[in-house]
Amino acid sequence: MPSALILMADGTEEMEFTIPYDTFVRAGISCTSAFVPAPDTDGSEPHAVSPPFCKGSRGINIQPDTYLEKHKCGPEHFDLLVIPGGAKGAETLSQSPVVQELVRDYLDHDKFVGMICAGSLAALTSKLPKQQLTSHPSVRAQLENDFEYSEDSVVVSGKLVTRSLHSSRGPGTAFPFAFTLVELLCGTDKRQEVRSPMVFPLSTPF
Amino acid sequence: MPSALILMADGTEEMEFTIPYDTFVRAGISCTSAFVPAPDTDGSEPHAVSPPFCKGSRGINIQPDTYLEKHKCGPEHFDLLVIPGGAKGAETLSQSPVVQELVRDYLDHDKFVGMICAGSLAALTSKLPKQQLTSHPSVRAQLENDFEYSEDSVVVSGKLVTRSLHSSRGPGTAFPFAFTLVELLCGTDKRQEVRSPMVFPLSTPF
Repeated sequence: MPSALILMADGTEEMEFTIPYDTFVRAGISCTSAFVPAPDTDGSEPHAVSPPFCKGSRGINIQPDTYLEKHKCGPEHFDLLVIPGGAKGAETLSQSPVVQELVRDYLDHDKFVGMICAGSLAALTSKLPKQQLTSHPSVRAQLENDFEYSEDSVVVSGKLVTRSLHSSRGPGTAFPFAFTLVELLCGTDKRQEVRSPMVFPLSTPF
Repeated sequence: MPSALILMADGTEEMEFTIPYDTFVRAGISCTSAFVPAPDTDGSEPHAVSPPFCKGSRGINIQPDTYLEKHKCGPEHFDLLVIPGGAKGAETLSQSPVVQELVRDYLDHDKFVGMICAGSLAALTSKLPKQQLTSHPSVRAQLENDFEYSEDSVVVSGKLVTRSLHSSRGPGTAFPFAFTLVELLCGTDKRQEVRSPMVFPLSTPF
């Protein structure tokens, strides 16, 4: 069974977390959510306290499955690492040295990394080599000097997936983003098997 | 500020809960989630215990904002009542006598009631008069004798909204379902204002 680690922090966009998680479970992918606490204001490492919830960008409180711990969350444990957006959540995730190291480790070990919306900032802070990617328009200016910023068609740059079909730039494209990752991990048939019972409106382009 | 009460139970479909909640908050609608415990196996009333989480159909744990309490959740407090799907969650919600009474009260007081996917079962258990509605195909057989079952175009039957644009029949249509309710509560301009920054793929039909 393929497996995915989906990161979350206070301020993560709830739909960009929930849609991939839910869609992956429907595809038979084992999902684990890992919480990344915001750093202390003095800049030291986050405390390993145990908040019961992660507060999403629109106020929905979600309980993480676990804390992000490097030795439990590396590419030897999961096939896919997902970094959702939401301005404040993406900032916490992309600024975390552990997240940055994991992003590089997953790609170095030929595992998939998916970034959606402002989550693409982690490509910058992880100092990934220049390659194609996309993001929510709100963080485009921070990314376009260091990457080949793209606006159309899916961008699967090696194992880095920041875009699917027309765009993975906002929560509106969380579904095609999730479907693309299902296809990459489980094949085309599984993508269709998962998508069909969701009963999308006719002519939906993904 | 318009206000919405979104119900949840163990087994509620996470996307059908999260997408309307998040979209409504973006539209400036004040949202409250209310948890409905499953009834005891002996058939007596649910205990008012305090579970910290609602476990969604795909294993995501979400903290409800409050418990469903009739005197705090009636149509004098909210403009819209939403019943999401997910087979087990929809069963708990639709079988709850308090939910059934609230559905009738909201409609009697000319407030909106939105049902998505298997949530439409609550129209049946609340003994609403025969009218147009739709649902996830999995519960169609339970509904088509007592309602004018419809498959195309939005169904806004008085204040009962079970369908939007092409369909609100599954999680794939949770977005158009949410947008239709935003439009009904806040107007067409607000619908567009909320939808635009979500950056849907080109040619998405909602």
